[in-house]
Amino acid sequence: MHLQPNVPSPRAWDTGRQSREQRLASAARFARGKLVAHQDATSLLEAVLRPGDRVCLEGDNQKQADFLARCLAQADPTVLRDLHIVQSGIVLAEHLDLFEAGIARKLDFSYSGPQGAALARALAGGTIELGAIHTYLELFSRYFVDLTPHVALTVARCADRDGNLYMGPNTEDSPVVIEATAFKQGIVIAQVNELVDKVPRVDVPGDRVDFVVEAPETFYVEPLFTRDPAQVTETQILTAMLAIRGIYEEYGVRRLNHGIGFNTAAIELLLPTYAERFGLKGRIATHFALNPHPTLIPAIETGWVQQVHSFGSEVGMDAYMRARPDIFFTGRDGSMASNRLYCQAAGLYATDLFIGSTLQIDPQGNSSTVTRDRIAGFGGAPNMGSDPHGRRHASDAWMKAGREAADGTPALPRGRKLVVQIVETFGDKLDPTFVEQLDSVQLAETLHLDLPPVMIYGDDVTHIVTEEGIANLLLCRTAYEREQAIRGVAGYTPVGRARDRRVVEDLRARKVIRRPEDLGIDPLDANKSLLAARSIKDLMRWSGNLYDPPRKFRNW
Amino acid sequence: MHLQPNVPSPRAWDTGRQSREQRLASAARFARGKLVAHQDATSLLEAVLRPGDRVCLEGDNQKQADFLARCLAQADPTVLRDLHIVQSGIVLAEHLDLFEAGIARKLDFSYSGPQGAALARALAGGTIELGAIHTYLELFSRYFVDLTPHVALTVARCADRDGNLYMGPNTEDSPVVIEATAFKQGIVIAQVNELVDKVPRVDVPGDRVDFVVEAPETFYVEPLFTRDPAQVTETQILTAMLAIRGIYEEYGVRRLNHGIGFNTAAIELLLPTYAERFGLKGRIATHFALNPHPTLIPAIETGWVQQVHSFGSEVGMDAYMRARPDIFFTGRDGSMASNRLYCQAAGLYATDLFIGSTLQIDPQGNSSTVTRDRIAGFGGAPNMGSDPHGRRHASDAWMKAGREAADGTPALPRGRKLVVQIVETFGDKLDPTFVEQLDSVQLAETLHLDLPPVMIYGDDVTHIVTEEGIANLLLCRTAYEREQAIRGVAGYTPVGRARDRRVVEDLRARKVIRRPEDLGIDPLDANKSLLAARSIKDLMRWSGNLYDPPRKFRNW
Repeated sequence: MHLQPNVPSPRAWDTGRQSREQRLASAARFARGKLVAHQDATSLLEAVLRPGDRVCLEGDNQKQADFLARCLAQADPTVLRDLHIVQSGIVLAEHLDLFEAGIARKLDFSYSGPQGAALARALAGGTIELGAIHTYLELFSRYFVDLTPHVALTVARCADRDGNLYMGPNTEDSPVVIEATAFKQGIVIAQVNELVDKVPRVDVPGDRVDFVVEAPETFYVEPLFTRDPAQVTETQILTAMLAIRGIYEEYGVRRLNHGIGFNTAAIELLLPTYAERFGLKGRIATHFALNPHPTLIPAIETGWVQQVHSFGSEVGMDAYMRARPDIFFTGRDGSMASNRLYCQAAGLYATDLFIGSTLQIDPQGNSSTVTRDRIAGFGGAPNMGSDPHGRRHASDAWMKAGREAADGTPALPRGRKLVVQIVETFGDKLDPTFVEQLDSVQLAETLHLDLPPVMIYGDDVTHIVTEEGIANLLLCRTAYEREQAIRGVAGYTPVGRARDRRVVEDLRARKVIRRPEDLGIDPLDANKSLLAARSIKDLMRWSGNLYDPPRKFRNW
Repeated sequence: MHLQPNVPSPRAWDTGRQSREQRLASAARFARGKLVAHQDATSLLEAVLRPGDRVCLEGDNQKQADFLARCLAQADPTVLRDLHIVQSGIVLAEHLDLFEAGIARKLDFSYSGPQGAALARALAGGTIELGAIHTYLELFSRYFVDLTPHVALTVARCADRDGNLYMGPNTEDSPVVIEATAFKQGIVIAQVNELVDKVPRVDVPGDRVDFVVEAPETFYVEPLFTRDPAQVTETQILTAMLAIRGIYEEYGVRRLNHGIGFNTAAIELLLPTYAERFGLKGRIATHFALNPHPTLIPAIETGWVQQVHSFGSEVGMDAYMRARPDIFFTGRDGSMASNRLYCQAAGLYATDLFIGSTLQIDPQGNSSTVTRDRIAGFGGAPNMGSDPHGRRHASDAWMKAGREAADGTPALPRGRKLVVQIVETFGDKLDPTFVEQLDSVQLAETLHLDLPPVMIYGDDVTHIVTEEGIANLLLCRTAYEREQAIRGVAGYTPVGRARDRRVVEDLRARKVIRRPEDLGIDPLDANKSLLAARSIKDLMRWSGNLYDPPRKFRNW
């Protein structure tokens, strides 16, 4: 049984490197050094890619390698076929065109946003073979295990002739994508806005980059985190007041992440006004893992916010962040530095609260942003909206949540991440937010998915905030109590009307459910005068005109 | 209530940058460009650091900035005092000397290893004010939120005059430490083995590095993951056989992480021999998030292992990894590339199984490596040894574990990470591994810790493997069943003898407990002839003499 260890292995151990060298040789005629003319970009891709390759075509939450996407979509499908796309964002029409043309076949992704409906159709029609819908950290992690890209198509603001890349505030996913690809003998191609003699700072070292293409147009960035204060409703202001008094103040939450919606934008705009009344400055909401939300500007300017680390940037915020290095992470060149993986890890392990909105919640507290005909994907919310069992440091907020969750006095005390869903009982078009069954369950059956796409599972949710009040699920001791606590804040939705009134009253007496008046909040006080900024223009003024909002938000 | 947004803020927003400029000015007289002579290193540190600074003095799992540690320990404690050390490893005597001298006061760390006993004494004596004992991902995450270093003292193999750093296989924690420090206007100082004109590859771009010191001696690396096959016991071989048949084969585990102990080394050495008998090649243990364990060499050479991403390197493995780029991540220079944060993320989100050993397990399945007089710290095991609730991709192993954990047919099916503790019922010095109460509970009381240091909490553990059999905790439906399943594999320890024999027999009938014979394993077959390598020399032969073991493992 003992094998002979001294028999030399006949196997080749560098097939990846050989493949890489062949690809580079095929591409050589299109390149001068690392530089490739934009007219040759499609030919470059045809030379470098092989059928069946795993390809990451960034494709992030915000920035897009849009020129390379167009070039790839124009490739000859008899040459380039069956690619396996492994990228976080499927957000451009070109991303789906690849599948229509047969250039790509399999997809592993994380977020689809504007392409959610088209993606659902492509899945139903069989054009796309779905691997899985991931969370960000999960997909990045698989880059190092079983989804390592053969080719990464990345995007930067500028590059030098050695391939050193400057991404500035828009670093996002690129460092992790490029590390996984370059260090597994893959090929890295960058589109850049311009070639320069010297980059302002090195976000990715040139020796990880094989080709640089100066794109004819500046790359696209989606202003995904801009919320116009003028569109914040009074109901959203009320839920924000509830969250501030019933959760932020109650637990002393200092380190946190906010979701993308108007409810959390309202919280940001209430810090310098409503929260100020209760002397909470410095005691809540001081350290954020957060994109640079324009609605955070008033809280920054009034000294509420002490530090922000960001996943990515936000259109129009560059000059403001450059002028606030005490708050934001900025490079030696002065501009902001983001990193989605680092910030997701920070949001998972180093914050005490995740708060976000959702489209649907079921009576068990499971939530989803999927509807019958749209697959929005997950992004990072499920990473941050979960209790990391590998956390071992205490904080007041975390320990209090842990005590509430414990039944009696456990032998081993533990803390608990606060995971809050903040919603209005009825959403857009007056669809009820609370539903007996998530649409995603039906969708999973229709599309034969391994798992129904659930954004945050009910057992990770600690609080649900609606205009009717706060349900503290940590204090529920049975599944029935939990369900009634959720029904008890679900308002006039069918889920809410099906509540057991006696149990709900009992839960309120036990402070499991807290109504606005239980927290000293008069719903009539919830009005727009409470917002520190009531318009995009107000945000500009707060920033000393450093914030430069994108055109579509300028309605003056 | 509406604030005036157009009142200009009188506040300075660049105090961090101003402080940085003052520090750089103080240090200028010791530097030519970025280069500082090693004789001036202590003066440099005295010039650059300020009392109360958060300092990361790497201090990783393996590589050590040992020269800079000695220089800092020699600093004048009337100049440099009350530093807050925020680093993953407290493993050198100098790390503790800093606290004795009053240069450092507060500590946030992750792993102590050889200094565990001295650290416990320093905590008991009040020399160290403890923040928390973290897991790796958790500490790295806090670097971006509330433990951002003011100064990072890092270590590389070589640097050029621009400060570009080459770490080669020993990258480990450095990229994340340096990113957090440099992008928050902190100061980065690197000790290097040599200055070169051009680094073989850029692991950290020079514009993030302020000073480079050529150290008089090569930096120290601990060969932490080398296990001599000659020391693997027959009991460990038996537990390895159980794990292979009862877990790896049963669940079809392909993506995994192994702990540091002899039990998992035995599994590695049984893959090409024992596991081969069952036709498992390609069906189990193909993709690893793992340090380059020398005991993995036979499994690599026989084609079992398809890909390995590593946290760090291992002494003596450099040439072997360079020759196996299809297996390991390697840079364009040919040498291996590691990254602790990326690999921890991979171990958390992209593997289906974590298996490791521990010193103590209680009847609830909680485990600890802390003993009455030693604080070993956590390292990364609790990150990987936990079920990540933010995972959304399916695999056969994960789905099967999820089905077993589910009581009945849940509305929302979910998977589950396999978290396995593999131990012998009695450890070194015949101390029982199974104890009614973890020593760490007592220690936490003595040292007034916020939380008892628990390595992996019982509710994350899915299986416990001992020489008596496997307890599958997923199949337990009550706390009592769970406790009896654990007692039922705890052998002749007091915990094992206190079992309820009737319940344990019932659990065995339900396959919750499986004895060796239930898996077709004869304990008498567990002998050293099953090991693919029986000595360090065998490992060298397997590697074609590419593996170059450190002297202390060469007993010939």
